Amino acid sequence: MNDKIKHLIDVAAKRKKAELVLKNCRIIDVFSSEIIEGDLAIDSGKIIGIGDYCGLHEIDLNGKYLSPGLIDSHVHMESSMISPGQFARAVVPKGTTSVITDPHEIANVCGLEGIKFMIKSSEDLPLNVYYMLPSCVPATPFENSGAILEAGELKELIGNPMVLGLGEMMNYPGVIQGDSKIVDKLKLAQDNNKIIDGHSPDISGEELNAYIIGGIKTDHECSTVDEMQDRLRKGIYISIREGSAAKNLEALIGGITPENERRCLFCTDDRHPEDIIESGHIDNNIRTAIKKGIDPITAIKMATINVCECYGIKNLGAIAPGYDADLIVVDSLEDFNVLEVIKNGKFAAKDGEALFQVKKEDITKVSGTVNFKKIHEKDLKIKLTSNRANVMRLLPHSLLTEKVIREVEVDDKGYFKFNSDKDLLKLAVIERHNATGNIGFSLVENFNLKGGAIASTVSNDSHNILVIGDNDHDMHAAVEEIGKIQGGVVIVSKGKVLKKLELPIAGLMSDKPIEAVKEILEEMLKTAYDRLGVNRDLDPFMTLAFLALPVIPEIKVTDKGLFDVVNFKFIDISVND
Amino acid sequence: MNDKIKHLIDVAAKRKKAELVLKNCRIIDVFSSEIIEGDLAIDSGKIIGIGDYCGLHEIDLNGKYLSPGLIDSHVHMESSMISPGQFARAVVPKGTTSVITDPHEIANVCGLEGIKFMIKSSEDLPLNVYYMLPSCVPATPFENSGAILEAGELKELIGNPMVLGLGEMMNYPGVIQGDSKIVDKLKLAQDNNKIIDGHSPDISGEELNAYIIGGIKTDHECSTVDEMQDRLRKGIYISIREGSAAKNLEALIGGITPENERRCLFCTDDRHPEDIIESGHIDNNIRTAIKKGIDPITAIKMATINVCECYGIKNLGAIAPGYDADLIVVDSLEDFNVLEVIKNGKFAAKDGEALFQVKKEDITKVSGTVNFKKIHEKDLKIKLTSNRANVMRLLPHSLLTEKVIREVEVDDKGYFKFNSDKDLLKLAVIERHNATGNIGFSLVENFNLKGGAIASTVSNDSHNILVIGDNDHDMHAAVEEIGKIQGGVVIVSKGKVLKKLELPIAGLMSDKPIEAVKEILEEMLKTAYDRLGVNRDLDPFMTLAFLALPVIPEIKVTDKGLFDVVNFKFIDISVND
Repeated sequence: MNDKIKHLIDVAAKRKKAELVLKNCRIIDVFSSEIIEGDLAIDSGKIIGIGDYCGLHEIDLNGKYLSPGLIDSHVHMESSMISPGQFARAVVPKGTTSVITDPHEIANVCGLEGIKFMIKSSEDLPLNVYYMLPSCVPATPFENSGAILEAGELKELIGNPMVLGLGEMMNYPGVIQGDSKIVDKLKLAQDNNKIIDGHSPDISGEELNAYIIGGIKTDHECSTVDEMQDRLRKGIYISIREGSAAKNLEALIGGITPENERRCLFCTDDRHPEDIIESGHIDNNIRTAIKKGIDPITAIKMATINVCECYGIKNLGAIAPGYDADLIVVDSLEDFNVLEVIKNGKFAAKDGEALFQVKKEDITKVSGTVNFKKIHEKDLKIKLTSNRANVMRLLPHSLLTEKVIREVEVDDKGYFKFNSDKDLLKLAVIERHNATGNIGFSLVENFNLKGGAIASTVSNDSHNILVIGDNDHDMHAAVEEIGKIQGGVVIVSKGKVLKKLELPIAGLMSDKPIEAVKEILEEMLKTAYDRLGVNRDLDPFMTLAFLALPVIPEIKVTDKGLFDVVNFKFIDISVND
Repeated sequence: MNDKIKHLIDVAAKRKKAELVLKNCRIIDVFSSEIIEGDLAIDSGKIIGIGDYCGLHEIDLNGKYLSPGLIDSHVHMESSMISPGQFARAVVPKGTTSVITDPHEIANVCGLEGIKFMIKSSEDLPLNVYYMLPSCVPATPFENSGAILEAGELKELIGNPMVLGLGEMMNYPGVIQGDSKIVDKLKLAQDNNKIIDGHSPDISGEELNAYIIGGIKTDHECSTVDEMQDRLRKGIYISIREGSAAKNLEALIGGITPENERRCLFCTDDRHPEDIIESGHIDNNIRTAIKKGIDPITAIKMATINVCECYGIKNLGAIAPGYDADLIVVDSLEDFNVLEVIKNGKFAAKDGEALFQVKKEDITKVSGTVNFKKIHEKDLKIKLTSNRANVMRLLPHSLLTEKVIREVEVDDKGYFKFNSDKDLLKLAVIERHNATGNIGFSLVENFNLKGGAIASTVSNDSHNILVIGDNDHDMHAAVEEIGKIQGGVVIVSKGKVLKKLELPIAGLMSDKPIEAVKEILEEMLKTAYDRLGVNRDLDPFMTLAFLALPVIPEIKVTDKGLFDVVNFKFIDISVND
């Protein structure tokens, strides 16, 4: 390293030639919010500086803008349904050179092994992947996941140099109550001088103080300017999210001021393949912010230096001597189209295409994760004690559901009976991690599926098998196919598999490129709408993915049964009164 | 610690009463640059938060302002001539609750032992004292100091939790040339993930890039807005200095913009007792900045949160849940008079008076540091080979000197001969660390001393004995007295000691309170002016302290001889040509 420092000094002092000099740049200075015109020298993956430099290799940027590479301050990579390597190939061309990820989804399936797989697969990529250790596995006590991670388990990874801290602490009631297992996790992060990400919708005042004093430093769940300002005043960094399901930028943009912008960041949280391909990644947050009137350099700071200050990442997020040479070339600050991407001084993407290949990941430890107790058609029957039932009514374009009571038909043996004239489907959640045989049921209205079934292993946060259909035969066939392909999404009709997306990595991620996943998903969507007549006011797969998450009102279902989120308790399907 | 986190959460959630609640405060929010009116709860030395809290102890601030405690981002405490404990009693009442100090002066006398003494004596004070390890001991190769500190020696202390990094790297030519011993020190700091302070007057362009890429992160030596902006653009934090000798605030104030203010800090560097007592410490930087038009909250941020962001100090510098309860009460943001100071939740000062006592430091390892080879009057004679001599001419109110040539009288044995009609004094620098017997001489004009001598062990940076006088007898007596009291400042006339300031700690610091030191210094100043007729356009003691620093133009003298700073070489006193 002495040699490296000495070498960098020699290059900066012009005793040695720089590897690369970018000529005639408009360099974005995130320290003074200025544009500096000049030539930039780069060597050994580091910025040498602006000056009168000669390079072994020289490129004329003809006045194009040079920005620091973009950083996603909070993302669950699994939501993009591709492996870390493929994720890099998808987002680096969009200008993202670093992400801070919380591998919460794979951890719910594979525990520590899942996190280790993500860390291992993201080594040596032209993308810095920093990790926040999942703080809530399982997400709730109302479901069975594939792992339970307490402080004792997390301890093994907290010291890893790529681990920046503890991931979003969703269990804010637990923090506010001072739950000892939660406090152990907070302490683990604090003792190791690491950051703790927050997740605290709808709390304020003394409750928010109690949550923050637990050590929480960020929040990406704000949906109003009031929530945002309240947290900023209490020292919380606000990460403004533009995901696939949740988009907060428009609502929060008015809360950004010249005084507090240094405490504001950008994130995507969950971003689906088609959105990354069509509208981009963090570059999309920046473009959207600029369109809504934010100064371009302010927007760039929110995706660069501000993130590094928040998470204590040194020598990243700016264009200055000694900083990592992670750079993007854009032609206009208004359009902010990423033309070229430089990672550690090497060109990594051009015109939207990755210039690198990624090694095939070894997925043995995170595949074959679908392990459920053999089921027969009859196991999918729902026993009722009344012909009035609690039903989950789906709402268009929303993750929320409505709890309604409906008249249902019951056969002579007392089982729920399908009626093709009624839009009343059966939904089953089958525990798939430890073959417990747990199956939870619900009846669903407004999904509008006819003559088939859809099954999936992508069901936040425990990712059990979720199957919905209008007949037990197709539902059973769909579950069988899920077992065969060991995870993914399948559409079955009349006993035949019409389409399937294989997700061999934990039943969550494909090992194929993002374009291939997008193409299959589009076909499946078409099949669901055209062949099965699914309600076009909702995305069937995204909708299904949230039907087993017992924290979103009003009614959800887990492998343990039907859950009334409003009253926070399990309920029967049958209504007897 | 779990218990502590749990306890803090319980207090924040109002399940337990807070130790202290400050009612009706105007709380300065450094995150959003706003004033928040409310009640602030404090417990276990931490801020609990603003809210509807009841306290075991409650105090009504009647709408007074509450600011985070102030932080001096760069100070050599030795320059205040008092021990760390007494320094705390002097500056805490001024609102300073943390300092980042570079014990460079004592290190030049006592080496590592000196630094350890400072660290030990600053433990358990109601003042956070963070350390930067002196990077340049000795300051130059042109003098003999009491110690030589290379990376190998510094390694022992770099891991200390109170050590934030490597102190101001004054040897910028060494960095730019990639000098291996300097690079070893830079590497030591970088390997330990610590900050490196800068000191880089007058360099720019590629040279400045080379200096910064060595890992330098701050600079407190800027004297022009251009220098300041040049460094800010290259990622350097700028600490704006208001010391006793050097004052840069007026010159730099115009360089602070809303975009770059987050990268600007305040410091004092060197501050003498009378200045601390009369005009204050960092509160003086803030008042001066406000008077010159800086927004008060911006000025406060420069002395609080900005410093913590720069040096990576967590949970300090703001008023928010989980932050250290270091607070100051001020009645007006314009006058910024510090009325009360709270350190870790306890009142530490009120109405300018410290509310705490400090333990008597054990100075055994840093006293008895004056060790010079016995000298006789004759040893002070200057042999000349010409009656034309290079003379050091002092300039009023300046640390700069002028090199002039003067006719001098030489006795029959070839020695310099005093002439009472001429203002031409003799200055000797006597090595006092290892009794080498080294004595360097110079002739001095414009000091105007008659009938006596002044000697001192405060002579930056090596702190050898410096004695000036118009006759060898008094000069010899003054040096003898310095030996007797083992360090300090003495005034002698006609063989009698008129006044003396004893500095038993390394010959640099008194063990008495700042008021006592100030009083003695004032008497000595009066004596120097009234009894010895010293030129009133200069402070004789401060002037002497810089006559042996061979980096300030034009001409200086060390124990190794007369040094021409402009041509960077030793020269003879005699001019033969």
